[in-house]
Amino acid sequence: MKISPLQKARYEYSPKLPGMLRNGISEICVKEGEETQSVADQEAIKALFPNTYGKKEITFERGENTSAPKKQVVGVILSGGQAPGGHNVICGLYDALKATNPDNELFGFKNGPSGLIDDDYLVFDDKYIDEYRNTGGFDIIGSGRTKLETQEQFAIAADVCKKHGITAIVIIGGDDSNTNAAVLAEYFAANNTGVQVIGCPKTIDGDLKNEDIEISFGFDTATKTYSEVIGNIERDANSAKKYWHFIKVMGRSASHVALECALETQPNICLISEEVAAKKMSLSQIADYIADSVEKRAAKGMNFGVAIIPEGVVEFVPEFSALIAEINELLAGAKADAFNALPTWAEKYEFIKNGLTKESFEVFDILPQGIQQQLFLERDPHGNVQVSLIESEKLFSALVADKLAQRKAAGTYTGKFNPLHHFFGYEGRCAFPSNFDADYCYSLGYNAFMLIQYGYTGYLSKISNLSNPASEWVAGGMPITKMMNIERRHGEDKPVIKKALVELDGKPFKFFEANRDQWAEETCYVYPGAIQYYGPAEVCDLTTRTLALEQE
Amino acid sequence: MKISPLQKARYEYSPKLPGMLRNGISEICVKEGEETQSVADQEAIKALFPNTYGKKEITFERGENTSAPKKQVVGVILSGGQAPGGHNVICGLYDALKATNPDNELFGFKNGPSGLIDDDYLVFDDKYIDEYRNTGGFDIIGSGRTKLETQEQFAIAADVCKKHGITAIVIIGGDDSNTNAAVLAEYFAANNTGVQVIGCPKTIDGDLKNEDIEISFGFDTATKTYSEVIGNIERDANSAKKYWHFIKVMGRSASHVALECALETQPNICLISEEVAAKKMSLSQIADYIADSVEKRAAKGMNFGVAIIPEGVVEFVPEFSALIAEINELLAGAKADAFNALPTWAEKYEFIKNGLTKESFEVFDILPQGIQQQLFLERDPHGNVQVSLIESEKLFSALVADKLAQRKAAGTYTGKFNPLHHFFGYEGRCAFPSNFDADYCYSLGYNAFMLIQYGYTGYLSKISNLSNPASEWVAGGMPITKMMNIERRHGEDKPVIKKALVELDGKPFKFFEANRDQWAEETCYVYPGAIQYYGPAEVCDLTTRTLALEQE
Repeated sequence: MKISPLQKARYEYSPKLPGMLRNGISEICVKEGEETQSVADQEAIKALFPNTYGKKEITFERGENTSAPKKQVVGVILSGGQAPGGHNVICGLYDALKATNPDNELFGFKNGPSGLIDDDYLVFDDKYIDEYRNTGGFDIIGSGRTKLETQEQFAIAADVCKKHGITAIVIIGGDDSNTNAAVLAEYFAANNTGVQVIGCPKTIDGDLKNEDIEISFGFDTATKTYSEVIGNIERDANSAKKYWHFIKVMGRSASHVALECALETQPNICLISEEVAAKKMSLSQIADYIADSVEKRAAKGMNFGVAIIPEGVVEFVPEFSALIAEINELLAGAKADAFNALPTWAEKYEFIKNGLTKESFEVFDILPQGIQQQLFLERDPHGNVQVSLIESEKLFSALVADKLAQRKAAGTYTGKFNPLHHFFGYEGRCAFPSNFDADYCYSLGYNAFMLIQYGYTGYLSKISNLSNPASEWVAGGMPITKMMNIERRHGEDKPVIKKALVELDGKPFKFFEANRDQWAEETCYVYPGAIQYYGPAEVCDLTTRTLALEQE
Repeated sequence: MKISPLQKARYEYSPKLPGMLRNGISEICVKEGEETQSVADQEAIKALFPNTYGKKEITFERGENTSAPKKQVVGVILSGGQAPGGHNVICGLYDALKATNPDNELFGFKNGPSGLIDDDYLVFDDKYIDEYRNTGGFDIIGSGRTKLETQEQFAIAADVCKKHGITAIVIIGGDDSNTNAAVLAEYFAANNTGVQVIGCPKTIDGDLKNEDIEISFGFDTATKTYSEVIGNIERDANSAKKYWHFIKVMGRSASHVALECALETQPNICLISEEVAAKKMSLSQIADYIADSVEKRAAKGMNFGVAIIPEGVVEFVPEFSALIAEINELLAGAKADAFNALPTWAEKYEFIKNGLTKESFEVFDILPQGIQQQLFLERDPHGNVQVSLIESEKLFSALVADKLAQRKAAGTYTGKFNPLHHFFGYEGRCAFPSNFDADYCYSLGYNAFMLIQYGYTGYLSKISNLSNPASEWVAGGMPITKMMNIERRHGEDKPVIKKALVELDGKPFKFFEANRDQWAEETCYVYPGAIQYYGPAEVCDLTTRTLALEQE
């Protein structure tokens, strides 16, 4: 099989472990910390996790390894969307497992959590693992979105583990998957299966973050990849001097990705969904905000710019959410038949006009026709509007064009406005992990095995102090229950790890807020360029601006 | 001004010159070769270029510099679309010019050829130049698309040169710009202005290529950038295993970019416009060709894939070109009024049905409605269809979906088809130049100055033997007239440099052709990763697969 020169070179890279894990397996001992409490709803969470709640935070340090010399058979699962570094979690896990005891085994369950239920797996060996070291993708065993959450699934999982003599499961996933890891750990403990469960924090969205998880893996590489191409587009805009680029970036609910890219590239505009929601901004207000930048720049002779739009922003616009809810109601079930029977868009439009409230129709009416039609014509099997399909980058550029036409008529704007559109998401989820993600992920996996070896369950593999060099990173574990609270989900109270949104009083946003007026009017672009794996440390090993600002 | 860590590091990079230019200015002498003939239409070209035709090819070699010690004042112009490395051409030119005589001056005419006409310029100094070394973009002086081709423009250009004492102009551009450079050189010579003109071959499209120009600059970096993100998407496809990605890549008429990306990443499908034209393929045949791959992969359980679509492909489909011509005719001038007056799309559709020939209507009828409407509703100021706006990646995925629906009904196909769409163009035009482009461009500029210093005009700066290490590169110059033939353009016979299309009997296409059946059915993806500027030479210094195959 042909591989690229970079892939070949990356095979040779040795990921950096935290200093305390570098002395060999026999020199890793545990230091137990305080017993933990969940961040909220302590009584409820404790009641749900009687066997795994309240355990102690632990850190590893140099010292005699006192773990029991039992043979370990570990199963690993990749859950959910791809994130750069997933392969390295498995490599680190494998290396620690084999270094501890060559008879230990690592099973990889295929295509996500369903692999455990379906008993679909492979057993890793050196040759197989070596083909995935420091590479992107989840193709090592595939991933999937099946959720492990029912008692029936847990019972099957227990049977599969028993069949193979599996002593521990490592789940690599986002907030939901780690929540499910905690529930599975509790089930295994309650049923005395002897199987431990360890979670690893993955998501490019950056919304799995709290006082214990400084950053989820993949966020660094994905945002560096997006920032590379955004920076290239900025330089193109600043060279051609005739286009406004509207760039949508992945990240469904939180705007961490957009904010990090903005901090890296200093575009003229970056919308932050959390701010849109907090200020209850209307589409018109957002369009005016962008049009102000276009107008000011045009007045200086700069008819070009770059605007970053977070994927999920329209859902954070209150009037737009209300419109979507009304449309879903208007076309629910059989009501859609009358609508679908109307032969022309003009007739459908009348139907819509009569069916929506005045407020929602006004919102609907300012949308470009392409988006209007998409809202009504492309709905999911339940008849709901598919919000994730809305091309919000085109929506906002169209609204801005309308605003500019009004301003031109009013005589306040005399520039030219040529918008171009981009969406970046799939480009970054499977990039070769940056040195940071390669190191971090390898450490997460290596550390996960140490947690297993020392008998912990329901823990998250935790590596911290990440804005410092890897030699100073701190390795340990945290009970997943500590990060939980109770939230209403699908009409039920559920224990979940809270999703981290962008905090409007946090340092990353504050830095952005303090600078964005200048960025909007002037050309302050920064061009990060492609991720570098070799060369000067300040080019190759720095992690995100978000983390640097948070840990300042 | 804030700059990225990579930009800072790239300032320190020393581009590699051809071995023969490394011994210092005083050790560069000229070796004249044979007198040249244009590639075709010799008499006609000779008649048009009486003062600059038939000059000798030259190469530089190590030896005593015998050029006249005259003070040089050089003007440089960036023409047309951005290509990575343009800044380095100017840096190389500047360094050679200052090394020859510190009193020499370099003028940069701003925003393209119009800068020369408008006398809009800056004078470079060390501080300014140093901020652009090894960076992407054309923002150093801006670029533009004004063509220098009229006698009036030439006369103004001569006046501007005289005013500043300019002794030579360097034009950095594509085939048209270099054609115009030759015409300007002839004008300056015929009018005894004493001003020389040198061209440098730029374009990411790769279509400025012939026996004298092995590769145009920027093609290497742009295709590496596209291949990076295409490879990332392939890895995502192979991990998620549920999407077919249709990826359009820039390159308006020739498919060099698409082919190079395919050679780098081994996707399941890559259309080559030149083949589509040669085989007179219909849209339906192309859709069937892609659907065959989808079906075969689905039969193996692989409901995912990657298809590369060259930007200009629809213009190479004979039936589609015919349709466009009919639409342009149908709505020419006042005829559009009747069409525009029709209130509904249904009525417009009837108008179209009645106005097109049966053959063209059949082509029109299989297009998805979005594309149909685009063809009729979004036309340029002359009423013509804007072919470059056609989202051909969406067009083909829609046609493939239709084919698959038929096959499903026929029972031959039982898979799932979820297409996603991408367009990559602006992402690659302003990337930090690869080491190859940084070296090549710096050499082109350095070499351009040596041609000036030795008194040549109407020459192209030529660096060859490029698939070997830079130490073995050959520096010299070639009369631009040698590359010319006569072509019909806008109803006139014009001397032009011939655009190079993908040769279907050339080694790059032959290699692709020999492998594509396997790539279509199996998963042979190669993941090139991000451009590396540091690290192992085989990762950092190799140029394109196209050039490697051509020079094999």
